[in-house]
Amino acid sequence: MLKVLPHLLPGHSIDNVIISFDEENGELLILLIHLRDKWMLPGGLIFKNEDIDSAAYRLLKERTSIDVPLLSEFGTFGRFQRRKPEEVDLILKQINNTSPAISNFMHQRFISTGYLAMVSKDECHLSNDVFGDEVLWVPIKDVPKLIFDHNEILEKAIEFLKLQLRYLPIGKILLPEKFTMATLRMLYEAILDKELDRGNFQKKILKLEILHKHEKLMTGASNRAPYLYSFNEENYNNLLDEGIGFSI
Amino acid sequence: MLKVLPHLLPGHSIDNVIISFDEENGELLILLIHLRDKWMLPGGLIFKNEDIDSAAYRLLKERTSIDVPLLSEFGTFGRFQRRKPEEVDLILKQINNTSPAISNFMHQRFISTGYLAMVSKDECHLSNDVFGDEVLWVPIKDVPKLIFDHNEILEKAIEFLKLQLRYLPIGKILLPEKFTMATLRMLYEAILDKELDRGNFQKKILKLEILHKHEKLMTGASNRAPYLYSFNEENYNNLLDEGIGFSI
Repeated sequence: MLKVLPHLLPGHSIDNVIISFDEENGELLILLIHLRDKWMLPGGLIFKNEDIDSAAYRLLKERTSIDVPLLSEFGTFGRFQRRKPEEVDLILKQINNTSPAISNFMHQRFISTGYLAMVSKDECHLSNDVFGDEVLWVPIKDVPKLIFDHNEILEKAIEFLKLQLRYLPIGKILLPEKFTMATLRMLYEAILDKELDRGNFQKKILKLEILHKHEKLMTGASNRAPYLYSFNEENYNNLLDEGIGFSI
Repeated sequence: MLKVLPHLLPGHSIDNVIISFDEENGELLILLIHLRDKWMLPGGLIFKNEDIDSAAYRLLKERTSIDVPLLSEFGTFGRFQRRKPEEVDLILKQINNTSPAISNFMHQRFISTGYLAMVSKDECHLSNDVFGDEVLWVPIKDVPKLIFDHNEILEKAIEFLKLQLRYLPIGKILLPEKFTMATLRMLYEAILDKELDRGNFQKKILKLEILHKHEKLMTGASNRAPYLYSFNEENYNNLLDEGIGFSI
């Protein structure tokens, strides 16, 4: 890291909140890095001559091997003393570096900007990050105490996602190509963290005209088997541009 | 400024976008600072031991005399070379400072976080800022080329405001206590920058049940005088908490 140090921008970092959906259990998954007994969001530092947006994509790729088409900036976290010195020391230990230059650099105040992406976990091939730390999907209800203010960053990301539900059709990335109405509703329930009325949800979603109806899901069961749906690409993209007012 | 310099956080700044509404002309107003022949958003630097949220309120007060109950962070602007060196020189000239320490400080890369507030212009008593620069309300359509990437910051603030319209009842701060339906519609038209259908708008707004209907506006004209409305405090605050899905 000593070689890279002169090229790093002091005082500003990136934290990525990467969200996926576990259809089987109907719960959101968060991508976390496990470093000894500490947990953190995958993030890192910016180069002196790098746009911060570009740094967000690069860091995500470096630390988790994930490429995403869109990272949305959702907030900047600038509380004084948001990083405890002992937590910084832990990171220094992990990168096996006792150089005073690096220690001083890492112990300065950092303001962090958060970026959010939704991904399909089946299309992500996670590998350990450059420091050899584990990268894992963790169900949102099991997210432990994270390092620094990362729990607060995650919380704001979820708030941002809830707002997005009100004006963007969400689901295309998080669901398989064909899905049942129940699965789509479970995704909305997982994001909003509340139960939704079945009939009401179906009525409102169908009214947006963003779904194609397909054959029934073959379960070998009765004729009460649910229909499968997929997103109508054109209408979905139009709604992405226009925005919706969707209140549930 | 030399005395203050050691206490300033390097590399990060704040820009405030303060928006008001001119009911007479039905247009949004933006608060700008006029410095020689340059225009800019009111912003500034953060102290080393200051939360960035607190810095946003302090800077707004220092530069424009305005106190606001709520500044919302809406984005962070971190393009490499977003500040042209000759524009930085202009600011240095304005603060009449030729110290190399200050020049070096100001010429480093800065990432800026944008905060948005809506205010009633009648409740703002503007005074020149600490540097003696003029602080002015400028109709949004007349906003000139601003310094650095401030036009881009303003644009993102307006996008943020448009999204807010979809889930928050907006108007209580920007309008007088009693207003006509036409004035409320003009506010929405000004934010969305498009004409709205009169009947449709009235129907949708009334359905939210956030308005009290009062007596007619006394213009001395016919019995076609419009009714006055005010916000129903309780329902308005409930909607602020819950959010709405309002599509127009």
